[in-house]
Amino acid sequence: MTIRYGVIGTGALGGFYGGMLAKAGQDVHFLFRSDFEHVQKHGLRVDSILGNFHLSQVNAYKIPADMPKCDVILVCLKTTGNHHLPEILHPIVHSGSVVILLQNGLGLEEDLSEQLPEAMFAGGLAFICSNKIGPGHINHLDYGKLNIASYNVADPLVLSQVVSDFQQAGIHADLLPDLKFARWQKLVWNIPFNGMTVVLNTTTDRIMANENTRELSKELMLEVIRGANACGVPLKESLAQQMIDMTIKMKPYAPSMKLDYDHRRPMEIEYIYSKPIETARKAGFEMHKISMLEKQLRFIQSHL
Amino acid sequence: MTIRYGVIGTGALGGFYGGMLAKAGQDVHFLFRSDFEHVQKHGLRVDSILGNFHLSQVNAYKIPADMPKCDVILVCLKTTGNHHLPEILHPIVHSGSVVILLQNGLGLEEDLSEQLPEAMFAGGLAFICSNKIGPGHINHLDYGKLNIASYNVADPLVLSQVVSDFQQAGIHADLLPDLKFARWQKLVWNIPFNGMTVVLNTTTDRIMANENTRELSKELMLEVIRGANACGVPLKESLAQQMIDMTIKMKPYAPSMKLDYDHRRPMEIEYIYSKPIETARKAGFEMHKISMLEKQLRFIQSHL
Repeated sequence: MTIRYGVIGTGALGGFYGGMLAKAGQDVHFLFRSDFEHVQKHGLRVDSILGNFHLSQVNAYKIPADMPKCDVILVCLKTTGNHHLPEILHPIVHSGSVVILLQNGLGLEEDLSEQLPEAMFAGGLAFICSNKIGPGHINHLDYGKLNIASYNVADPLVLSQVVSDFQQAGIHADLLPDLKFARWQKLVWNIPFNGMTVVLNTTTDRIMANENTRELSKELMLEVIRGANACGVPLKESLAQQMIDMTIKMKPYAPSMKLDYDHRRPMEIEYIYSKPIETARKAGFEMHKISMLEKQLRFIQSHL
Repeated sequence: MTIRYGVIGTGALGGFYGGMLAKAGQDVHFLFRSDFEHVQKHGLRVDSILGNFHLSQVNAYKIPADMPKCDVILVCLKTTGNHHLPEILHPIVHSGSVVILLQNGLGLEEDLSEQLPEAMFAGGLAFICSNKIGPGHINHLDYGKLNIASYNVADPLVLSQVVSDFQQAGIHADLLPDLKFARWQKLVWNIPFNGMTVVLNTTTDRIMANENTRELSKELMLEVIRGANACGVPLKESLAQQMIDMTIKMKPYAPSMKLDYDHRRPMEIEYIYSKPIETARKAGFEMHKISMLEKQLRFIQSHL
């Protein structure tokens, strides 16, 4: 089976993962915005710890209507633009299309499958350090693991094939059995560090170096874990200390929300904070501190 | 009965309240730090909505050892220097001296009476908008009410006399029956707005204008009130909405902690945050959000 891939949003994530698939010979069609003309002329360039490469011939598009129907579509846009997705995806999905959301947060697939019932959805969780450093120019600095899990994909073989395609392209990819578990698990790290680096205008290493914020990070993690538990997701509390230990060992890092803040772009508050808070609340658990962090972020967003 | 007054810390508060007493003919002795030479030469100048005045002859001292023993001592320093107070006060107290702490927070009198058992203590709660705008130069902009309450003053007549002296000097002063109640009540406003204006680097009007931070302010107030209730202090929850409504009507305001932050001075985290958190915790109530605010402030303090 040959899959026709679509990549929506060819930035740090889409440029790297889509570029790796294309380099491995897969049939990949990329939607660009501002970089379209540049890539048509000069191709796509990826500097990567796995080896630099350059794709001179790229199936590049500027509007979805010009794209062919795709079997699997990797959505690599920020969630702050998700209200545009039904319109963007509509022309390129067919009745068997699988849309994989390489995005952070909770409730993404729920919202989109309501708005675009003709497609099936899966989540993609990228553990990667990658940036777009110029038009059509991606810099992949570290990690790269991609976990995929079905939301409502009817045929499990499609996702197995996708994982296999990624693996053959040199990506450390896995198919996970439980999307909700995977999304909550990723939030255990994302919730404390995205918000705290913004509110305190700092980086992960400084948060870890101060005993007050190190403790607060763990408290926020425990709140995520207990929120997940209330929703029936069996994350263990010991995960908090593991993630603290891991973060202490990391190089100084500015999470994606901090980069958005620094560049005065909209922050992904809705799906990383509001949806988890709301979901846990419906299950009877109030995430007090995370809710405070959300309000601080919304204040900061309103003054960006 | 004529009271000999000492004023420790002749800034925005001490300069105004002590200055008003001296202007009214009371026997007032002022301890200065950096402004000593200036005041010796030029006196103390107070610009006030109650009427400007200038004291050309001031009983000014640079070190406590030069001061006479005083009957009533107004402590108008920031609590961040309270560890120096026993040493400062020791030379000027006698066995009947009353030390009135015009400071914000909780547990101040407890800590000091342990370190200076020869004196008696009271709290002074100033509701005033006043700044020091130059050496020996105070600007009193608005309000001015002073509430006084005993911590362990043996003779209640002393404090009545102090209140009467203030009233005769033109100050709206009152003697309150319950220091704990008065201190917790003041914290209901101080805890949300001191910390939030620092963490979000803003002023009260902007916090009120944003629905997220307006709601968060009320949640923080309710946490203070419930913490007080747990400690046996019967503050009503309706106080939160009253203070929100009052703050909405206020002119844009930067609380004292925000001014300390702006000038990179130590912030009064210990007595405004840590002590109330600790006191409520001992009474079985965990102030989750206030504890988060405290940790954010301690992080910010460590990078000032």
